Amino acid sequence: MDLPSAIDHVRPAVVQIRIQRDRLNKGAVVGTGFWVHGDGLVLTARHVTRDSREQIAKLGAGRLVLGMAIPNLTGPPVTIRSSFGIVEAEVVEEDPRHDVALLRAADNPFSSGRSSGVQQVGSAVTVNPLYGLADFSDAPVRDGEHIAVSGYPLAEPALITTSGGIASAFGTDVAEVQAPRGPVGLTIPDTADSYLADVAVNPGNSGGPVYRTSDGTVIGVCVAFKVASAQLETQPSPFFYNSGLSVVVPIKYGLDLVSRHAS
Amino acid sequence: MDLPSAIDHVRPAVVQIRIQRDRLNKGAVVGTGFWVHGDGLVLTARHVTRDSREQIAKLGAGRLVLGMAIPNLTGPPVTIRSSFGIVEAEVVEEDPRHDVALLRAADNPFSSGRSSGVQQVGSAVTVNPLYGLADFSDAPVRDGEHIAVSGYPLAEPALITTSGGIASAFGTDVAEVQAPRGPVGLTIPDTADSYLADVAVNPGNSGGPVYRTSDGTVIGVCVAFKVASAQLETQPSPFFYNSGLSVVVPIKYGLDLVSRHAS
Amino acid sequence: MDLPSAIDHVRPAVVQIRIQRDRLNKGAVVGTGFWVHGDGLVLTARHVTRDSREQIAKLGAGRLVLGMAIPNLTGPPVTIRSSFGIVEAEVVEEDPRHDVALLRAADNPFSSGRSSGVQQVGSAVTVNPLYGLADFSDAPVRDGEHIAVSGYPLAEPALITTSGGIASAFGTDVAEVQAPRGPVGLTIPDTADSYLADVAVNPGNSGGPVYRTSDGTVIGVCVAFKVASAQLETQPSPFFYNSGLSVVVPIKYGLDLVSRHAS
Repeated sequence: MDLPSAIDHVRPAVVQIRIQRDRLNKGAVVGTGFWVHGDGLVLTARHVTRDSREQIAKLGAGRLVLGMAIPNLTGPPVTIRSSFGIVEAEVVEEDPRHDVALLRAADNPFSSGRSSGVQQVGSAVTVNPLYGLADFSDAPVRDGEHIAVSGYPLAEPALITTSGGIASAFGTDVAEVQAPRGPVGLTIPDTADSYLADVAVNPGNSGGPVYRTSDGTVIGVCVAFKVASAQLETQPSPFFYNSGLSVVVPIKYGLDLVSRHAS
Repeated sequence: MDLPSAIDHVRPAVVQIRIQRDRLNKGAVVGTGFWVHGDGLVLTARHVTRDSREQIAKLGAGRLVLGMAIPNLTGPPVTIRSSFGIVEAEVVEEDPRHDVALLRAADNPFSSGRSSGVQQVGSAVTVNPLYGLADFSDAPVRDGEHIAVSGYPLAEPALITTSGGIASAFGTDVAEVQAPRGPVGLTIPDTADSYLADVAVNPGNSGGPVYRTSDGTVIGVCVAFKVASAQLETQPSPFFYNSGLSVVVPIKYGLDLVSRHAS
Repeated sequence: MDLPSAIDHVRPAVVQIRIQRDRLNKGAVVGTGFWVHGDGLVLTARHVTRDSREQIAKLGAGRLVLGMAIPNLTGPPVTIRSSFGIVEAEVVEEDPRHDVALLRAADNPFSSGRSSGVQQVGSAVTVNPLYGLADFSDAPVRDGEHIAVSGYPLAEPALITTSGGIASAFGTDVAEVQAPRGPVGLTIPDTADSYLADVAVNPGNSGGPVYRTSDGTVIGVCVAFKVASAQLETQPSPFFYNSGLSVVVPIKYGLDLVSRHAS
């Protein structure tokens, strides 16, 4: 599969995570998510759900909604650009250790019988949001495999896809945690796998699917980029920049959540 | 066409846009442009021509010139590095809405009969700047298509090419404009298409050609990169960085200018 | 060769350059290097050896060591992550003009007869660091050729690989130097070739191999990234960022050092 085909394969699964103040408000995009199960379940990053709660608290109002893309069309018969169907969602479970969270849509498109996309019968045109389930792969990831990230960074009104290689399939995050059956205070190392990707991502990409471009299968969830700093001789203090390396949570941690809540 | 071949295909069409103070001055590069018509017409970004005027006003002297690359050679018989032939140019028309501008060379290489590149006859070597017309494509652009940007960023003395995918073929910029035949103050939305590219560009790339690597055809003009910001917990204020997403003006807006001024 | 295969081809040759305070100390990574000759010779960037001396002077203790990766394994029988074998090294020769330096390992793995990697005989598992010599290529480099950089940036515990194209095969750095047989003060231009790469690199990548992904042959040494700046209208001062363009020293300058010190 080439990159354009892989993007089209994943596209229906990708949703915006927005905070909407009221019914008339378009809302602000706080991250990205993707459909993982026909029960109306969406996977995203846990810091996206945490940020959503903080924003709702700050606003004193608002709710978490999903923005489902309506296909771009350059008419005739109609021209559509950057339009979204909106559906409410609730947080089902969060995993702060691995930065993944599961949402459930209030109105499940997979059980609504509503068509996905654009249908034209005679002169009548029916336009519905795109939706579809992501495919997953638990085949081992190799350094250098070509991958892509799709999502809604930088408040852009259209789906954004960036791509590159796996920079390291062996990123790790080791935390000391309480031993399950040990005395209080006895800790053991808890290793959380992660991948590093040579892919440019930005605020808003969090929670989006990271997928192999060879077959469009999702291997992880985009959660962060590494910030680096450098010092110029001509400047008094170092400057910070996006290193170009992004952090990917392996999909297995997300599927653990799904397996506990899918019918 | 692989990337090296696509670069060699586009290379003769790319020129520097410089401000030169006087005949002996090498000038400062303010952007990039490319030959679009045998009448000696060059396309660039409108903010490059605007910046040129501002710089000339600030200097109180100077003129807009084109720097045409002379082929790099590692002798024998000669060694040439980062050399340019210079020709004066004037602004023909500017389109501030879409950030494109058209220039005309005072001395048109396409009608001079001068050869392009390096010729050796016996022991005599003739060296002339490279020049050639860009090819264009108005075939629809798809998310994920592989593209490249060539130009003269960061005051580098050699042609620089960066590449990647179309991040979104559906960027849009909507402005409210006066309705053509409406009463004063009645505005209508004016949508300007743009593409976002997953390609690293920098100051000086503006006005350069963005082309498909599959066949070397130009699909747009490089005009900007998106600046993003992020906040570190350890720092009092957010930092800004190049997001890695660059803005491409579709070639149709440039060809509109060409069609009004070519013979 | 695809990118994953090219990485695996180069992987055994890549080492960390660390400053270790004492035998129990893990040390801090200051850069990357790679095995270039069976005499136990490692090539790196000269500013890495200079930085190492400065850090040792600041610490008042410490020595330069090489970190050789032990293969990552996800058991059974054993699980290994981000582990390294350590061997002392000394600086053999430095070339400040071209920013390359040659090191020699105190304990040469190529003459130790020790196996490289993981061997299992029955239930016995032997684990040794990976080591192997890099392959080189002096075939001319073309703009747009696909290349990769492997190394240890940003204190990451695993090998990091980023990739992209040659942005320019004709970067040059011209310095005025004393003419060899001329009177004192008579200078001549001294041109040092360099390449620019469209590859994201970061502090710690310095000294690492830059190689063709088509065959895994090393064409240069990673030494720097270009810093760029931009001004936002809303901000009082410009911000600095990693331009995405990195500087590569052609391998010929490194091989000059090797040829003077290999048996």
